[in-house]
Amino acid sequence: MDSVSLPPSSQAMSASLTIPLGERSYPILISAAGPSALLQQPLPKGTAALIVSNTTVAPLYAPALQQVLAGHYPQVHSVTLPDGEEHKNWQTLNLIFDALLRHGCDRKVVLYALGGGVVGDMTGFAAACYMRGVAFVQLPTTLLAQVDSSVGGKTGINHPLGKNMVGAFHQPQLVLCDLSALDTLPARELAAGMAEIIKYGPIADMQLLAWLEQHMDALLARDRQALAHAVKRSCEIKAQVVGADEREAGLRAILNFGHTFGHAIEAGMGYGQWLHGEGVAAGMVMAAELSQRLGLVEAAFVQRLRALIARAGLPVRGPVLDATDNAGRYLELMRVDKKAEAGAIRFVLIDQPGRAVLRAAPDALVREVIDACCAP
Amino acid sequence: MDSVSLPPSSQAMSASLTIPLGERSYPILISAAGPSALLQQPLPKGTAALIVSNTTVAPLYAPALQQVLAGHYPQVHSVTLPDGEEHKNWQTLNLIFDALLRHGCDRKVVLYALGGGVVGDMTGFAAACYMRGVAFVQLPTTLLAQVDSSVGGKTGINHPLGKNMVGAFHQPQLVLCDLSALDTLPARELAAGMAEIIKYGPIADMQLLAWLEQHMDALLARDRQALAHAVKRSCEIKAQVVGADEREAGLRAILNFGHTFGHAIEAGMGYGQWLHGEGVAAGMVMAAELSQRLGLVEAAFVQRLRALIARAGLPVRGPVLDATDNAGRYLELMRVDKKAEAGAIRFVLIDQPGRAVLRAAPDALVREVIDACCAP
Repeated sequence: MDSVSLPPSSQAMSASLTIPLGERSYPILISAAGPSALLQQPLPKGTAALIVSNTTVAPLYAPALQQVLAGHYPQVHSVTLPDGEEHKNWQTLNLIFDALLRHGCDRKVVLYALGGGVVGDMTGFAAACYMRGVAFVQLPTTLLAQVDSSVGGKTGINHPLGKNMVGAFHQPQLVLCDLSALDTLPARELAAGMAEIIKYGPIADMQLLAWLEQHMDALLARDRQALAHAVKRSCEIKAQVVGADEREAGLRAILNFGHTFGHAIEAGMGYGQWLHGEGVAAGMVMAAELSQRLGLVEAAFVQRLRALIARAGLPVRGPVLDATDNAGRYLELMRVDKKAEAGAIRFVLIDQPGRAVLRAAPDALVREVIDACCAP
Repeated sequence: MDSVSLPPSSQAMSASLTIPLGERSYPILISAAGPSALLQQPLPKGTAALIVSNTTVAPLYAPALQQVLAGHYPQVHSVTLPDGEEHKNWQTLNLIFDALLRHGCDRKVVLYALGGGVVGDMTGFAAACYMRGVAFVQLPTTLLAQVDSSVGGKTGINHPLGKNMVGAFHQPQLVLCDLSALDTLPARELAAGMAEIIKYGPIADMQLLAWLEQHMDALLARDRQALAHAVKRSCEIKAQVVGADEREAGLRAILNFGHTFGHAIEAGMGYGQWLHGEGVAAGMVMAAELSQRLGLVEAAFVQRLRALIARAGLPVRGPVLDATDNAGRYLELMRVDKKAEAGAIRFVLIDQPGRAVLRAAPDALVREVIDACCAP
């Protein structure tokens, strides 16, 4: 299990935990002190740093980070990517390689991912591939990235035929979740992050679910004490799962609760139309509904989850992807999901509240769920 | 050390050895029996196989491989890439991902690289990245790929600003060096492969160098007994080095003897103008010359190496890359080499015949060597 320490002076507003991966272990810092919180830890040594950010985040945070890093690296470069899931592709990834080579960066360069999940996934993948692997640090600036994508070493880009189809497992050296970065996060993206926090309840911790029911208003009001607890507990659960199954041989797949349906929604609508967290939100309702129809959970559990998701301002119904055969289109998209094997879709279902299981389901039942759960 | 076994029936024409990498260990088969030699080994299990080849090799060998694999996989797909180092880029790599996704291949797909170093490096990199990692098998059809690039798990593509700048360490499950594939190899490419065989002499085994001096005519005449010995001994040396240093933390870099100058030649001339082995050949002379000027080896050793390289039909002088400041252009190109650190070029030099060392050298001395070793 991960080690958790709370400095007494800062109460719940600052914490650190460790992703337990042997020689690839690394700390996650949770703080509201801005990029200077990095100084709590020894930074990875290097001949240069490259800050990778996007057009939205760079103007807000890159100068402060630049200042912190200037004291640690002989050179600090930066590259700014276009913002949005629709840019998570080869063309954008190449901007990072172009910058690295233009500045003559060698194998001792350290990449700093400053942004949300898209920036983190692409920076991590660039770090995995540049000269066959260099170090990187995650500074997630969205709630979703703080509680999910920045932790665990999954990196990659999308392909027109599927999300995250090309990538690598590459662990960062350090993750800093800066809660102050959430102050400027649009409400829609805050809600999208909430979907990944809610996820940890049904799959691992019903106490967290109950806590979220009590504190959803505080979280949406960006109360830092509440956010600190939600981020820390989410990272703890993720750390435990990733530590037990780094390369998704089994257990780790439970973190994809809601994602099989969610990825179909994202791909079917065109990347960027639905936020990842929004797809996961509607996808969790569908996966819970499927669990119920398979006799695993009660209707009351599904209703409880649906209500919490709705309170977070998230969609509880999926979109219609095809007017003629909507369920068929969902199934088609889900069969190319990475968890599928020989065309058989493996769903993350809720075995009992607080516990997830990976299994197949009859197409007919999945069609029923899609028909019942999609608007209008 | 690797285990070496020679089946008594087939004398020196068939052999197998193992790359010793713990749970990532894998066998190298050396045979002249065509793709059916694969059947000597259990093939990696999978839901499908994808044969990746190029427009030159596919017509000659893909049907026979297809037939062998059809007995082992429910589905066998194939994709044919354009031939040549100039196509070792994102665009071509994407053809592999497109094929994998178009055929709905899942994580249990096995990629078969059928071709030279370019096909092997790109197929391996695609395997490293597709769904964050799938299995692959190498069937190198050039001498260079058989004795060097197919063994050891280095994969990747080129960037306009540097060779193999984007890639991954990803070990194959199996390598089959089919000597019969060399029958159709153009003489220029056979010679290029000889450069990498010659390389193993100065860095690791002067007995091999002496053997090559005795058998160069037989090798160039494609005598299978001679080729079998040269391929086997090369793979043995590479296996030993890679087994001791999989991710190039130190020792493995000695395999790049001649490559620092060679990569500059390839990049400076434009990829595909000089074959990789040709760049390495001239590069080895330059690195040996630099070793001599640093007082590490005698002039007689440099002359002996130069003579053997010339006998193999390979260039012993580098091209002029810039009419005004040729040495400056070489230095500029070498500073972006992956082995460079903070702009300091680390050369693989010969410490004493049969032993290599990694070290820097004064720019002035490197300039002297370039001026002395470049035509006209």
